[in-house]
Amino acid sequence: MKTDDVKALIGALKQKKTGMYRKDFLLTWEKSRDELEATFLVAEALRLMRDAGISPRLWDSGIAVSNFRDNSTRTRFSYSSACDLLGLYVQDLDEGKSQIAHGETVRETANMISFLTEAIGIRDDMYLGEGDKYQREVGRSLDDGVAAGVLPDRPTIVNLQSDIDHPTQSMADLLHLAKHFGGLDKLKGKKLAMTWAYSPSYGKPLSVPQGIIGLASRFGMDVTLAHPEGYDLIPEVVELSKKQAKESGGSFSHVTSMDEAFKDADIVYPKSWAPFHVMQQRVPLLHSGDQAGLKELEKSCLANNARFTDWECTEEKMKLTKGGKALYMHCLPADITGVSCKAGEVAASVFDRYRDDTYREASWKPYIIAAMILLGKRKDPAATLEALLERGTPRTV
Amino acid sequence: MKTDDVKALIGALKQKKTGMYRKDFLLTWEKSRDELEATFLVAEALRLMRDAGISPRLWDSGIAVSNFRDNSTRTRFSYSSACDLLGLYVQDLDEGKSQIAHGETVRETANMISFLTEAIGIRDDMYLGEGDKYQREVGRSLDDGVAAGVLPDRPTIVNLQSDIDHPTQSMADLLHLAKHFGGLDKLKGKKLAMTWAYSPSYGKPLSVPQGIIGLASRFGMDVTLAHPEGYDLIPEVVELSKKQAKESGGSFSHVTSMDEAFKDADIVYPKSWAPFHVMQQRVPLLHSGDQAGLKELEKSCLANNARFTDWECTEEKMKLTKGGKALYMHCLPADITGVSCKAGEVAASVFDRYRDDTYREASWKPYIIAAMILLGKRKDPAATLEALLERGTPRTV
Amino acid sequence: MKTDDVKALIGALKQKKTGMYRKDFLLTWEKSRDELEATFLVAEALRLMRDAGISPRLWDSGIAVSNFRDNSTRTRFSYSSACDLLGLYVQDLDEGKSQIAHGETVRETANMISFLTEAIGIRDDMYLGEGDKYQREVGRSLDDGVAAGVLPDRPTIVNLQSDIDHPTQSMADLLHLAKHFGGLDKLKGKKLAMTWAYSPSYGKPLSVPQGIIGLASRFGMDVTLAHPEGYDLIPEVVELSKKQAKESGGSFSHVTSMDEAFKDADIVYPKSWAPFHVMQQRVPLLHSGDQAGLKELEKSCLANNARFTDWECTEEKMKLTKGGKALYMHCLPADITGVSCKAGEVAASVFDRYRDDTYREASWKPYIIAAMILLGKRKDPAATLEALLERGTPRTV
Repeated sequence: MKTDDVKALIGALKQKKTGMYRKDFLLTWEKSRDELEATFLVAEALRLMRDAGISPRLWDSGIAVSNFRDNSTRTRFSYSSACDLLGLYVQDLDEGKSQIAHGETVRETANMISFLTEAIGIRDDMYLGEGDKYQREVGRSLDDGVAAGVLPDRPTIVNLQSDIDHPTQSMADLLHLAKHFGGLDKLKGKKLAMTWAYSPSYGKPLSVPQGIIGLASRFGMDVTLAHPEGYDLIPEVVELSKKQAKESGGSFSHVTSMDEAFKDADIVYPKSWAPFHVMQQRVPLLHSGDQAGLKELEKSCLANNARFTDWECTEEKMKLTKGGKALYMHCLPADITGVSCKAGEVAASVFDRYRDDTYREASWKPYIIAAMILLGKRKDPAATLEALLERGTPRTV
Repeated sequence: MKTDDVKALIGALKQKKTGMYRKDFLLTWEKSRDELEATFLVAEALRLMRDAGISPRLWDSGIAVSNFRDNSTRTRFSYSSACDLLGLYVQDLDEGKSQIAHGETVRETANMISFLTEAIGIRDDMYLGEGDKYQREVGRSLDDGVAAGVLPDRPTIVNLQSDIDHPTQSMADLLHLAKHFGGLDKLKGKKLAMTWAYSPSYGKPLSVPQGIIGLASRFGMDVTLAHPEGYDLIPEVVELSKKQAKESGGSFSHVTSMDEAFKDADIVYPKSWAPFHVMQQRVPLLHSGDQAGLKELEKSCLANNARFTDWECTEEKMKLTKGGKALYMHCLPADITGVSCKAGEVAASVFDRYRDDTYREASWKPYIIAAMILLGKRKDPAATLEALLERGTPRTV
Repeated sequence: MKTDDVKALIGALKQKKTGMYRKDFLLTWEKSRDELEATFLVAEALRLMRDAGISPRLWDSGIAVSNFRDNSTRTRFSYSSACDLLGLYVQDLDEGKSQIAHGETVRETANMISFLTEAIGIRDDMYLGEGDKYQREVGRSLDDGVAAGVLPDRPTIVNLQSDIDHPTQSMADLLHLAKHFGGLDKLKGKKLAMTWAYSPSYGKPLSVPQGIIGLASRFGMDVTLAHPEGYDLIPEVVELSKKQAKESGGSFSHVTSMDEAFKDADIVYPKSWAPFHVMQQRVPLLHSGDQAGLKELEKSCLANNARFTDWECTEEKMKLTKGGKALYMHCLPADITGVSCKAGEVAASVFDRYRDDTYREASWKPYIIAAMILLGKRKDPAATLEALLERGTPRTV
C-alpha cells in the first residue's frame, strides 16, 4: 500500500522537468518550480520507502564529506542520517573555523577529498559575503577536477546553511506546510508571517528568514516580512522575494510591526536575527580575531535588541492570527520565555502547544537532504527510485 | 557446526520470558533473570555467528548515537564495534561535558537526533545523582516522541555507564565468568570478592563495584564486598544486593578487610573507587567549575587513600584464595604496581598471570552491547536470530 | 571490457610470490619486489572494479581503526575512503599527541580496540626514532592477542607515515609513475631527482624523501638525492637505497646541487624537509613540551633555511631536465612561490602546469591503502578479487 504511494510519487516526479544532475543545491531561487517540487517528491518517496521497510540505499560504498564551519547538532544529525540512509560514510573535514580557505587551497582540498566522494555538505553561515562564495569556489574546483579526469564523478554540494540561504531548512519547512495544509497547491493565498522576534542572544544568521521568504514567495503565498527598523535582511533577497511573489500570484509585504504581520496569518515564523549591517561589521572583527571589538559590537547590539522585547510570540499575538490558530513554526532551538531564557522569542504556552509540530517540521530535513543528494547524482531520478523499489532490499531483518 | 551451536542458543532463548522490546537497558536489577539470561544468549549467538562467518547485520542503514559525557576508549570501541556489526552508523553527540542538559533541551535534542536512529548509547558517570536520571529523561522524551508520531520507532537506550550501574561491563564480566566456570548455573555458591584496592588516583566511579554486586547477587553467588571504613558505595545498592543474594540462594557479606574477602574466594575483583560521600561533595564543585575546591578535595582524598596502600592484590593475598587460584578480574585499565604507578591495585606478577583473562573478559563487551540493542528493538529476538541464520549473508568475501 | 582488464590484473597477480598475509605494511624495503608489484596490481584492480561499477566491498561489517598522532586531511580521507570501499567503519583512536604510549598501555589498547577490527592505520611521524618502533610494538601486541586466543583474527597495520617511511605515499607515487611512463618496467633507467627545496616552514618530516629513494631504488631507476650540506636524511636509509639501486640495475648519486640533480632528469620531486640532526634535537623538546626550546630551534632552523632560497623549482631549473619536460611530483600541499608563500619550493607557473598531474598522483593513495589492507588480510588475494568479480554486486543502483 505504501508502495503504491511511492509509485504515485514517482509518477508525479516523471512529470517534472529537472536539470539538477551534476549541479549543486545552493540557493532555492536558482532552482525551477519543477525542481523544487521534484525535491519534495523524492524526499517523500524516500521517507515512505523507509517507512515501508524498503531500503533506499543507493550506494554500497561511498564518502559523504561534512564541512561544518559552525557548530551544529541537528543539521549534523540530519546530514549523517540522510547520507547513511543512502549508503554513504560521513567523513568530517575540519579546516578550523577562523578563516575561510581561498584559491589554491580550496581547489586542492576540494579534489583531495573527492576521489571516492558522492556528496559534500557545507555549513558556512558566519561570514556575510563569504559562505555562498566559498561553496561556489568548491563547486568550480570540482568541475575542473572532473574535466581534468582527476575525479571519476562530480560530487554534489548541499548547502547546509550559508550566509544567504538555508535551503535544507526552508525546503523541510515548506514540505511540512504542504503536509499540514494538504498539498503544495493549498499554500496559494495562505498568509505567512516571517517576523523578527526578541532574543537575549545576538549574531543569529540571516539565512533562515531569507530562505523562508525566498522560497515561500515561489508558491503564491502572501508573505509578510516584519522586523523593527534597522533589522534588515540582505536587500537583494528581499527584492527577489517581492518579484517572485508577484510572479507566483502571491503577494509580499514588508512591515515594521509584529501585530500587523500576525493579523490574519495562517502561519507565523517568529525568529530572531542580527541586522544585516551588524553582520557586515562582524566579518572583519571575526577575521582579525578582535575579541574586544566583537564584545563591543555584541554589547551595543544587545542593548538595541532590548528595545524590542515586545516582539514576542505571545498568546495575545496569536489571537490576532486567522481564527487565533495560525501554525507556529521554528527552526529550533527557540528562545522560550521563562524556559530557556527570561524573555525570548515565544511564550512557553504557545511553544508547548506547537512543540510536536516543530518536531514534525524538523523531521523532514534528513529526507530533504537525501533528496538533494539523489537529484544531484542521478540523471533519471524516477528510474532510480523505481530501481530501488524493484530491488526491494529490506532495511532491516 | 557452529551453526548448530547458534541454533541451540536460539532454542534456549525461546524458553526465556522477556519484555525488553522498546525498553531501555539502564540497570541490571530492573531486568528479570530471564531477561539477563536472554541477553547472554543473544550475545553468545551473535559472537558465534560472526565467528562462523555469518553476518549478524540487522540493518541495511540506521543511526546509533553515542553520547559520551566522559572520556572513554574501550567502551567507545565496544559500542561502535557492536553498532557496526548490526549495520548502524555511529554519530557522536557532543554536548560538552560541564553541565547536564535538562528539561526542554533534553526533550528536544532526544527527538532531533532520533528521526532515523535505532540506538542511543549514553555514558554519564561523573555526577552522582544525575547520570541515571538523565538517561531516564531521554527515555521519556523518546516515549513522548513516539506517542506524538514524531518518531517512526523507539530507539533503545543502552547505559554505557551511569552514576549507579555499568551494565555493559558487569554483564560482560558475568558472561566471562559463566564461560570460565562452565555455565551460569556453575556460579551458584562461588565466592566473589568485590574489593576496594589502593590507587594513586582519585574520583573513580562507583558504578563498577555497584554493577558487580548488583548483578552477581542475582546468580546465587557468595558475594563479599570489602573496603576500608568510609569507602562506602551508594547504600541503596548495597541493601538491594543483600536482598537479591538471599532471594537467589546466595549470600552477601560486607567487610572491612581485604584478607577476609580474599579468603577462599573463587573470584577476586580488586578495584579502586572514590567514597560515596566524596562523590557527593564533588558534584557541586564540578558544576560550579570550582577548580580550587576540586583540588582541595582531591588532596584530602589522596591523603586518605594513602592510609590504605596495603589494599593491594599481591601474591600473598592471592594465596588466601581457594587453592591460591582465584580468578582475577578487572574492568581495565588496572593500576599495576611498578608498571603504571609506584604502588597500585595489583602486583605486576599477579596481573601478568591473568592478563589474557582480563582481555577475554573485555572481549564480551561488544557482543553484550549488540545483544542489548537487538533485544530493545525486536519483539521476537529468537525469530530475528533465526532469520539472520536463514539469510546466511557471509560477513566477508 | 573493464572486467577483462581486471581479469588480466588478477592473472598477473597470480604470478607473484607473496607472503603478506597477517603481516603489516610498515616499510617498503621489507617487502619483496613481487609483494610491491602485487600491491600495485591489487590497487589497480580495485580502482578498475569500482570504475566499472562493481563493488569491491570485502566486508559486510568490521572496524578500521585510525590512529593519527599528527594532523592530516588528505591521508585521513584516503584512509577512510579505502576502508569504506572495503566495507569497514572507521573509528578514530585519539590518544593525545604529546607522548607515545609504551609497554602495558600499548599492549592493552592494541587488544581492546581490535576485537572486531580488520585494519589499523597509524600515522606517527613527529618523533624521530619512535614512530616505527611504536607501530612494531602494536604489531607484536596483536600477535600476542591472536596467540592467546583473545583476538579472533589479526588486524593488519598500515603505516600511514612514520619517522622512517611513508609507504602509502611512495607506493602511490610509483604507481603514478608506472601509469605515466607506460609500465613499471619502463621506469628502469629513468632519472629521478629527489631534491630538497626551500620552504619558509620547518620541521617537515623526512619520511617522504626517504620513502621515495627507498622505493625508487628498487626499480632500476637512476636516483639522485640532492640537498644542501647538513640537510641529511637518516643515514641508514641512504645507505640502503644505494645498495638497492645497485641490486636492481639502477644507480644512486648523492649531490649537494639542485642543478646537478635536475640535469637530464625524467622526474623531479623538489620538496622541503628538516635536517636529520634537527629532528633528533626536536624529540626531547617535544616530549618535555619545551616551547621556548622549540621556538629557539625553529628560529635557528629557519635562519639556516633562508640561506638556500635558490633551491626552488623554477622554469630555469626545469629547462635543465630531459627535454625541459621532466615530470614534476609532489606529495602536496606544496609551498608555491607567490601563492602559498612569498618564496617556496616551486614557481607558480611550474606548479600550474603540473597541477593535474599531482592530483592524479594523489588519486592512487586510497587504492594503495585498500590494496595493503586486502593483502594483509587475505591469503589468496587473487581468489578474493575473483570472488568479488564473480559476486558482481553493483556499487550503486
